[in-house]
Amino acid sequence: MNNTSVNNITVNNITAQELSALTDGVPHLIANLANTAALLFDKLEDVNWAGFYILQSDTLVLGPFCGKPACIEIPVGKGVCGAAVKQGRTIAVENVHEFAGHIACDSASNSEIVVPIRKDGKIWGVLDVDSPVTGRFSDKDIAGFEEYGRIIESFVKRG
Amino acid sequence: MNNTSVNNITVNNITAQELSALTDGVPHLIANLANTAALLFDKLEDVNWAGFYILQSDTLVLGPFCGKPACIEIPVGKGVCGAAVKQGRTIAVENVHEFAGHIACDSASNSEIVVPIRKDGKIWGVLDVDSPVTGRFSDKDIAGFEEYGRIIESFVKRG
Repeated sequence: MNNTSVNNITVNNITAQELSALTDGVPHLIANLANTAALLFDKLEDVNWAGFYILQSDTLVLGPFCGKPACIEIPVGKGVCGAAVKQGRTIAVENVHEFAGHIACDSASNSEIVVPIRKDGKIWGVLDVDSPVTGRFSDKDIAGFEEYGRIIESFVKRG
Repeated sequence: MNNTSVNNITVNNITAQELSALTDGVPHLIANLANTAALLFDKLEDVNWAGFYILQSDTLVLGPFCGKPACIEIPVGKGVCGAAVKQGRTIAVENVHEFAGHIACDSASNSEIVVPIRKDGKIWGVLDVDSPVTGRFSDKDIAGFEEYGRIIESFVKRG
C-alpha cells in the first residue's frame, strides 16, 4: 500500500483495491457502475456526489450515482464534465464557482474531479465526483482517481 | 395532498409528486432509475438503501441505487426481492431477520419493502427500499410505495 499520505491519497488507494475486488469478473455493466458509485460515495472522505455520465452522440447522459438527484443531460463542452470530455483529460477543480460554465446540480458542491472513461480508444463517459470542501481535489489526486478510471475501463470493456 | 399522517404517509405523498416532476418526459431509462433512487434515498425518512433490481431470465440483477454496495445477483424466490417477484406482489417486511431466506446485503438493514415493477404486463424488476428501523415499512405503507411503482412503470414503459 502506498502511504504517501498527501491529501487523502491513502484513502484513495485502499478504495482502488476494494473497487477491483467488487467488480472483477462481474458481467453486468449497470451493476458495476452502481456499485462503483456506491463504494466511492461510502468510502471517500468529504464527497457528496459520485457517479457516471455516459456519452450519447454529443451529450453526456446521467448514469448510476449516489448523492442528490442530478442533471440528466450535459452537452459536451459544458461544465466540468463536458470540459473533461472535450479536452480528453482528467480535470480537478479546486473551486467550481470559479470554473467558467460550471453546472450547479447540488449547491453544496464546491470542488469536483472528472475522469474520462474510454472504450475501444474512444471516450465512453466520465466518472464524476463532487465535494462540499473547496480544494478537496487537487492535481495531486489525479493519479488516484485515474487508477479508479483504469479499473472502471476494465469492466466497461466487457459490458 | 393526502394528510392522513399515519407512519410517514405524508412524506411518501410529497415524494411521489416530486418523482413525477423529476422523471416526466425524460427519455433516458438509466437516468430515471438513478434519479428515482436518489430522490427516495434523500427524501424518505429512515432509509439506508433505495434502488432497483432488474429481471434477466430467472435472476434479479442490481440496477441503479443509493446506499452501500449491494448484492449483484438475486435468484427469483430468494430473499424479499426474489419473493416479491415469485409472488407477483408488494412485500413489506417489518423485521427482515424473521424473513425466511433473507439476504443480508447491509447488516444495518432491519426492515424492507419491495414493489414489483411491470412492463408489457410482465415483471420487469423491483423497487427495493431498506431501513435500519424495525417496522419502518408496514402494510400501511404499501399504497404509498405502489404509487411510486406506477410512476416508475410509466417511464420504464418508454425505456
